[in-house]
Amino acid sequence: MKNFKFYNPTKIFFGSDKLNVLGSEILKYGKKVLLVTGQGSVKRIGLYKKVVKILEKNDIKIYNLEGVEPNPRIDLVRKGTKIAKEKKIDIVLAVGGGSTIDTAKTVAAAVKYDGDPWEMFDKNNDPVAALPIATVLTLAATGSEMNNGAVISNKIENRKLSIHSDVLFPKFSVLDPTITFSVPQKHTIYGIIDITAHVLEQYFTHVKEVPLQDRWAEGIILTLMEESKKVLKNPKDYDSRANILLCSTMALNGLLAMGVEDERTTHPCHKLEHELSAYYDIPHGAGLSILLPNWLDYVMKNDISKFVQFGNRIFGLDVNKLGEKYTATEGIKLLRKWFKEIGAPLSLSYFNIGKEKFEEMADNIAPVGGYMELNKADIVNIFNMAL
Amino acid sequence: MKNFKFYNPTKIFFGSDKLNVLGSEILKYGKKVLLVTGQGSVKRIGLYKKVVKILEKNDIKIYNLEGVEPNPRIDLVRKGTKIAKEKKIDIVLAVGGGSTIDTAKTVAAAVKYDGDPWEMFDKNNDPVAALPIATVLTLAATGSEMNNGAVISNKIENRKLSIHSDVLFPKFSVLDPTITFSVPQKHTIYGIIDITAHVLEQYFTHVKEVPLQDRWAEGIILTLMEESKKVLKNPKDYDSRANILLCSTMALNGLLAMGVEDERTTHPCHKLEHELSAYYDIPHGAGLSILLPNWLDYVMKNDISKFVQFGNRIFGLDVNKLGEKYTATEGIKLLRKWFKEIGAPLSLSYFNIGKEKFEEMADNIAPVGGYMELNKADIVNIFNMAL
Repeated sequence: MKNFKFYNPTKIFFGSDKLNVLGSEILKYGKKVLLVTGQGSVKRIGLYKKVVKILEKNDIKIYNLEGVEPNPRIDLVRKGTKIAKEKKIDIVLAVGGGSTIDTAKTVAAAVKYDGDPWEMFDKNNDPVAALPIATVLTLAATGSEMNNGAVISNKIENRKLSIHSDVLFPKFSVLDPTITFSVPQKHTIYGIIDITAHVLEQYFTHVKEVPLQDRWAEGIILTLMEESKKVLKNPKDYDSRANILLCSTMALNGLLAMGVEDERTTHPCHKLEHELSAYYDIPHGAGLSILLPNWLDYVMKNDISKFVQFGNRIFGLDVNKLGEKYTATEGIKLLRKWFKEIGAPLSLSYFNIGKEKFEEMADNIAPVGGYMELNKADIVNIFNMAL
Repeated sequence: MKNFKFYNPTKIFFGSDKLNVLGSEILKYGKKVLLVTGQGSVKRIGLYKKVVKILEKNDIKIYNLEGVEPNPRIDLVRKGTKIAKEKKIDIVLAVGGGSTIDTAKTVAAAVKYDGDPWEMFDKNNDPVAALPIATVLTLAATGSEMNNGAVISNKIENRKLSIHSDVLFPKFSVLDPTITFSVPQKHTIYGIIDITAHVLEQYFTHVKEVPLQDRWAEGIILTLMEESKKVLKNPKDYDSRANILLCSTMALNGLLAMGVEDERTTHPCHKLEHELSAYYDIPHGAGLSILLPNWLDYVMKNDISKFVQFGNRIFGLDVNKLGEKYTATEGIKLLRKWFKEIGAPLSLSYFNIGKEKFEEMADNIAPVGGYMELNKADIVNIFNMAL
């Protein structure tokens, strides 16, 4: 195990009645809220109305920042920052999924940043101060509700970059599984794929002697495999939604990264996918579903030992009978099979994406670290495998 | 899954070089430290000297509270509180195991408590304020380094009680596996048993649909079983010490309790053991080793379903071949076998404890909740099984 620091002060309110804490928790930080939301789904499901009602009942003044898109844009961050500065906002509240939360986090930091917000991403100027952040999560996926990162896209530059800082931990997050009942099937699946990728990008490490972190990672994958099938049958299965939500939050809150690797240097498959969604604006989870199995197939040649464990513990493959090579490759085949069963795309052709930009995208990010260091040619190879 | 709140702001510095953070981290809270230590082992292993050197180098003034005993006493808390008040201490630093940390926590709270410190325990007056607390852990066992509880004994009243409050979370804890190299074999084992008990008392719950919490609990037990054998062979095996230390900290920091049960109502076997060590002053881990398998055997009759899962996932017992009853009972037999293999006691006769006080001890704590509600007769039965 490597030496590490672990710190995560985000307070989690988990359950079907937890929206009610919103008033008293927000009031700990002030009376003026910037309420960040997406493209209208929180209004359609009646959540926006509920949140506003609770805030108004507590005499909290609301300023709105609406319209966060998937692959959230720096433009909207600039708009939100302007409002937050002018109105002297006390706390930024995201009601939405990862994109909404990341927009809220970036606005909260940008208010305290002297310069254009994109500089924080572009010049690796991780923020050192931010307004308090809180979230009401509507989608199990990114884990942003309990971590210190944010990912923002710049469409003019075709770039999607991240910032990390302890000031970006939400003060609290409300995780109510019933809020996720109405998430469409497609986005439920993309969320599950995103969680799976978070786990496996941390799991596939060369750091030896991390048996607890390994088992906790495997625990998330096994749980997702069970619950994904249940939730597709019944989108209002409370326990399935709750278990997927918990998996999402636990997958990227620092626990699986303990003693494994510097988080900043890992998440290689995410780096590849960020290029894909920066250029083609496809859903993040869909891009990961296409890339993850191919990335795994490609980096396996570097060292199959962890892949053997994966095939054995996740799919019950008996390495003594089947041999190491077969157990390792079959594990990834079965992962692909699961993706297919739950309806996740496995090929770039699903989005009519061809090889035109592969060289350019690879150029942007090479080299990429992780289980195997990938140079430009490696990255192009993986993109080609995904065609 | 039940609704829950999760919050744990303790910063963990984990690794072989982490003692060095002590200066800068302490200085965030002030320049006057109450340094709480035990019965001299931290001096014998040279740790005390190292800590003092780092603090003095940072111009931090040290006041000592020495002599914390296992099953730490309220008397010493009173002494420490007096010093802390008189010297206007800024932060309480525990260098030791769970007893030392719990003493430090209680002193930190008692400074802000208007009344005798024992009232907090006796009258269930959980503290609402405390001085900042920090720890340098020397023994993997109690988990106190990353939780909000403290257990203190009152020898005059033969009682051992606990307090819980978010103000008792250490601000930071230094977990350096090399510091645990010199822990004697016996106490290494007792620590492992304590961790095992923490996990299983949370694992054996009737709350259904907690697959992730189950797998994370099983992950700790499986890891402890592997690492316990390694560390007995080589007490200076860094990775084994590190993995056991991580298991200890993760076993009782709130993660396994998520959505399972109110922590205050559980830990039934600990309640029984606290009576034992309150009356006979035996090592806590030894008492747990004797009681835990008997408690499990006894409460199993209430519902074997979780025990079947335990036998299957921990010991690989094939329930389809062996049947539910056998898988459940055999699982506990194999747990006992593991305890025996690592040299942990399985009977009260090991300490020459007879049945004289069973009725009195049972009277003190009945009823005890958990997997099965235990009345006085049940508790006496379990003590009798442990003879």
